[in-house]
Amino acid sequence: MAKIRRVVLDVLKPHQPNIIPFTEQLTEQEAVTGVTSKLVEIEEKVRTIRVTIEGEDLDMDAIEARINDLGGSIHSVDEVSCGQEVIEDPWLANG
Amino acid sequence: MAKIRRVVLDVLKPHQPNIIPFTEQLTEQEAVTGVTSKLVEIEEKVRTIRVTIEGEDLDMDAIEARINDLGGSIHSVDEVSCGQEVIEDPWLANG
Amino acid sequence: MAKIRRVVLDVLKPHQPNIIPFTEQLTEQEAVTGVTSKLVEIEEKVRTIRVTIEGEDLDMDAIEARINDLGGSIHSVDEVSCGQEVIEDPWLANG
Amino acid sequence: MAKIRRVVLDVLKPHQPNIIPFTEQLTEQEAVTGVTSKLVEIEEKVRTIRVTIEGEDLDMDAIEARINDLGGSIHSVDEVSCGQEVIEDPWLANG
Amino acid sequence: MAKIRRVVLDVLKPHQPNIIPFTEQLTEQEAVTGVTSKLVEIEEKVRTIRVTIEGEDLDMDAIEARINDLGGSIHSVDEVSCGQEVIEDPWLANG
Amino acid sequence: MAKIRRVVLDVLKPHQPNIIPFTEQLTEQEAVTGVTSKLVEIEEKVRTIRVTIEGEDLDMDAIEARINDLGGSIHSVDEVSCGQEVIEDPWLANG
Amino acid sequence: MAKIRRVVLDVLKPHQPNIIPFTEQLTEQEAVTGVTSKLVEIEEKVRTIRVTIEGEDLDMDAIEARINDLGGSIHSVDEVSCGQEVIEDPWLANG
Repeated sequence: MAKIRRVVLDVLKPHQPNIIPFTEQLTEQEAVTGVTSKLVEIEEKVRTIRVTIEGEDLDMDAIEARINDLGGSIHSVDEVSCGQEVIEDPWLANG
Repeated sequence: MAKIRRVVLDVLKPHQPNIIPFTEQLTEQEAVTGVTSKLVEIEEKVRTIRVTIEGEDLDMDAIEARINDLGGSIHSVDEVSCGQEVIEDPWLANG
Repeated sequence: MAKIRRVVLDVLKPHQPNIIPFTEQLTEQEAVTGVTSKLVEIEEKVRTIRVTIEGEDLDMDAIEARINDLGGSIHSVDEVSCGQEVIEDPWLANG
Repeated sequence: MAKIRRVVLDVLKPHQPNIIPFTEQLTEQEAVTGVTSKLVEIEEKVRTIRVTIEGEDLDMDAIEARINDLGGSIHSVDEVSCGQEVIEDPWLANG
Repeated sequence: MAKIRRVVLDVLKPHQPNIIPFTEQLTEQEAVTGVTSKLVEIEEKVRTIRVTIEGEDLDMDAIEARINDLGGSIHSVDEVSCGQEVIEDPWLANG
Repeated sequence: MAKIRRVVLDVLKPHQPNIIPFTEQLTEQEAVTGVTSKLVEIEEKVRTIRVTIEGEDLDMDAIEARINDLGGSIHSVDEVSCGQEVIEDPWLANG
Repeated sequence: MAKIRRVVLDVLKPHQPNIIPFTEQLTEQEAVTGVTSKLVEIEEKVRTIRVTIEGEDLDMDAIEARINDLGGSIHSVDEVSCGQEVIEDPWLANG
């Protein structure tokens, strides 16, 4: 199956663990080379974060399981890149 | 015939399979070097995604057939690049 | 005469042939190194596409004839670059 | 006298000759390395085009004479760069 | 545990120490390669600054303790990057 | 004294000499490597142009004297860069 | 103590000395590699300028003293970068 190189996830998480250990934990997953999480919105009981994960061949089942273990859930997958390299959308790459 | 190097497709798909296996499947097509899919809109029964596919000489019949097999349909072809290399629209490339 | 290196055309075309074979056909013209077409507007009977063509010394008569053969017409020439290299408008190149 | 490296001209021209032979003719002038013309506005009897000309040491008298020969006129000189190299306005170069 | 490469913090601080010694002090922390602080808002008793810290493996407990020692507090962690390298959000990296 | 590397001037000038010989004349000044002038506004008796001058060590007295000789005047100095190299404002350089 | 690599200052200054000698004087300070000043606002008795100073290890006391000697005052420190290298805020560096 084609290799998953990058995903951008919209994630709901409780206030604890905070975004730093949450991101560290996701980076610990196999095949992950780096993770960047950005705070999008703070609500009373949850926070929405936008998580970009890059790797050689991401194991999405393991990533989702880890997010759930940490009390979070994937609200939506906003972007996914597969193949030999990450292809950029031309509108974004040049705009 | 001239080689198709990149296409950007506006695709309607059911909620399942989700955008990740959907993108993996498209990447499995012959001559495809990479695919990036972005979530554009979520409606009750369908999702609109914007799919950028790059390759050496894309087989659009096979790509469309695979999209249909996955329950999706090409709503419109937003951009196509053919030839020895991908030419960028100057307004986008410089803007 | 000075060499035509790049043109950007605003083209009206019928729905068929669709933008992909239309672009492949234009790329087949002599001296063309690549063509990128973008969908601009869909109307009842026609589509407007923005076509960027690059090459070593484009033959505009042959390009226009081919567009007409395919049922399309050049609505306007939005940009043309001639000479030893493509010069970019400084406002766009730096903006 | 200092060398003129690039000029950006706002030119009024009749509908014929169209922007492509008009640009080819300007590129034929001595010392010109390239010309890019963009369509700005179409009026009943004239078109406004924005013409960027680069060269080693542009002869503006010859360029203006050629524009006039082609039935056009320089409405304004929007930008001019002289010297050993083209200096970019920092606001544009970085903005 | 995965290495923390970059954090962006929204920090509330008293007017004194001012942003310069405040930033110098944070840069003194182990594993920090550089810190950039930007003034965001001036209120009667506090200032909000946006602090970007990069390093090989940031010690967030030590960083937070130092911020507190200086009379400041982390209002929110706006972004965190972990892993072998800093991954950029594709929307920002290309937009 | 520190070397002046680049200045951006807001200049008022009469309609004649036009922007091209005006810019050529400024480029003739000692230590100037290049000048780019942009037309900003046309009024009844004057034109406002934005002039960017780069050089190794600009002689501002000579530059202002030359502008005055040509019938123009410096309305304001919008930007000046001194030192071993031109430092860019980070907001502009990255924004 | 960590090295100060770059500061961006919001400075109020009288109309004289004008922005050019004012910037030259700041560049003369020890450890300064370059200074760029931009005019922000002209009021009746003062001008606001935005001053970016880069160097190997800036001496802020000396810089502030010099600004005061020239009749100016630091209204606010908008940005400061310390460490082995200048870290860019990711929002600005990529946006």
